[in-house]
Amino acid sequence: MRAMVTPEFGGPELFEERDVERPQPGPGQVLVRVIAAGTNPIDAKLRAAGASMGLDAPTILGADVSGVVEEVGPGVTDLSPGDEVYYTPEIFGLGSNGSYAEYNVAQANIVAKKPASLSHEEAAAVPLAGGTAYEALIRRMQIKVGETVLIHGGAGGVGSFAIQIAKAAGARVFATAGTQNQETLKALGADVALDYTKEDLTEAILDDSGGLGVDAVFDTAGGDTVINSIQYTKPFGRIATILGTEGDLTPFYFKNLTVHGVLLLRERQRLDEMSVLLERGQMKPLVDEVLPLEQVGKAHERLDSGHGRGKVVLRVAEA
Amino acid sequence: MRAMVTPEFGGPELFEERDVERPQPGPGQVLVRVIAAGTNPIDAKLRAAGASMGLDAPTILGADVSGVVEEVGPGVTDLSPGDEVYYTPEIFGLGSNGSYAEYNVAQANIVAKKPASLSHEEAAAVPLAGGTAYEALIRRMQIKVGETVLIHGGAGGVGSFAIQIAKAAGARVFATAGTQNQETLKALGADVALDYTKEDLTEAILDDSGGLGVDAVFDTAGGDTVINSIQYTKPFGRIATILGTEGDLTPFYFKNLTVHGVLLLRERQRLDEMSVLLERGQMKPLVDEVLPLEQVGKAHERLDSGHGRGKVVLRVAEA
Repeated sequence: MRAMVTPEFGGPELFEERDVERPQPGPGQVLVRVIAAGTNPIDAKLRAAGASMGLDAPTILGADVSGVVEEVGPGVTDLSPGDEVYYTPEIFGLGSNGSYAEYNVAQANIVAKKPASLSHEEAAAVPLAGGTAYEALIRRMQIKVGETVLIHGGAGGVGSFAIQIAKAAGARVFATAGTQNQETLKALGADVALDYTKEDLTEAILDDSGGLGVDAVFDTAGGDTVINSIQYTKPFGRIATILGTEGDLTPFYFKNLTVHGVLLLRERQRLDEMSVLLERGQMKPLVDEVLPLEQVGKAHERLDSGHGRGKVVLRVAEA
Repeated sequence: MRAMVTPEFGGPELFEERDVERPQPGPGQVLVRVIAAGTNPIDAKLRAAGASMGLDAPTILGADVSGVVEEVGPGVTDLSPGDEVYYTPEIFGLGSNGSYAEYNVAQANIVAKKPASLSHEEAAAVPLAGGTAYEALIRRMQIKVGETVLIHGGAGGVGSFAIQIAKAAGARVFATAGTQNQETLKALGADVALDYTKEDLTEAILDDSGGLGVDAVFDTAGGDTVINSIQYTKPFGRIATILGTEGDLTPFYFKNLTVHGVLLLRERQRLDEMSVLLERGQMKPLVDEVLPLEQVGKAHERLDSGHGRGKVVLRVAEA
């Protein structure tokens, strides 16, 4: 099969189109013909420094699949050839098995039926980024109707889903982005769009919330974001981060705060829960650009810039 | 009334016995005749450096009262003169109003009936330390039957309650202390007593838990305890700390951990919930020594040593 291989770890110019062996589905697994593959910041990190994270080169990256079941392995009864599916494949543990390729093998229990109302390009933008936002907001922070939520990096891949999920859960949403993405924040449903390059976030949030701060904060930006967020989070509030945090966390206990670290684990159930929101239009993927698989290097240049607006999706085959 | 006053912030030798004005209960408040006063590490911190924490000297410290209602203010209908009560008074906000004195004024809604089966000396050991352990384990980490919990500092004021509360909730309990307090840990109910001066905690806990680590960790020791605990906490586990933490928290998100910062807020409800456990004998205060109020300086020398075993309680008056 055709694949865009990472022959060694390094820059986005290294991708090579190669003909590699098509994988076979083992017991409990399905073979999926990839129609579209999402790109994510983790792909760029692995491409640049995969060895330090346990990957061997050459490898096939790519953490989002939308496609069609081609073949099912022994024991798989809940999926059939022809089913349209979407999911995040296991990059680790199954060898060289990312989505930048014509076929992908996955454990059936992490594969979900694709929402019928979404194109494959749209569906491929959802599993990793949408799943991370859903996990952080709904499962870990348990956002409820009437609460206030701040999304750091609201125009990014994860943040753009987070705004929509928080709104769907009934929250009032503050979101941050740079100057060029303020309109995007509003279009995604943010009640208050904040320009972190121009505004004092603490002042803006405390002013708008009567000095209280927000119930919950979602950090998709990293660095000192968690530490800075303490000052505009309500007592007994929650902060979730998908990145680390360094520094003095002492003030967080004076306010009885809770901090959740979030790393997506694969499962079908979460995708099925998101499918409900996607079918109803309460969550819409923000697809910024669709490129052919061969231009994965260009997609990675975008990832490396760190200033994405929504997602870049690769078209691997015709549906 | 007689009080042991902190005339200026500094060492334990500074306490002075003085005759000060007896406080008056305002609307919604009760005046309590103090029978016993607990001592807590926070008292020693405030004595040494209260100015930096917003206190003015001279002041009366002391954050645990067991006593008898002497008089109720206007509007108080749920407490009456003669009621035996226990609670943590507000040190901040009500002026010079700690428990190292013959009388104390408190908002009625933070005062609870004392469990009848406890002496005043026992009851005075409970509100702040027991309340902090209860808040961390039951309300924030929500320890459930069948889980495993590690208590750092299990022989201390807060830790000794934490072991008992975790056992009462049905958990298997690991607890740490120095060599001299290993028997105390077992007597309090710890399933596994660990000597942090001699044992490699990571190895001991991972060995005993089949390499998994514990579901929940309670840090009463501070420093780098939270950071170190990450390696022996299960994925999706919880860590609660009553102190700050500095350092690199990045590994905590790889494991999907949650960290809770805990600072006790006063309320009657939590005391009433603990009273149930105290009446049933599922929680017993570990009172190490009872001293007369005049010897508060000696109690503070013990607090300053940082190696307490349970609590030192001051007898203020005869019951």
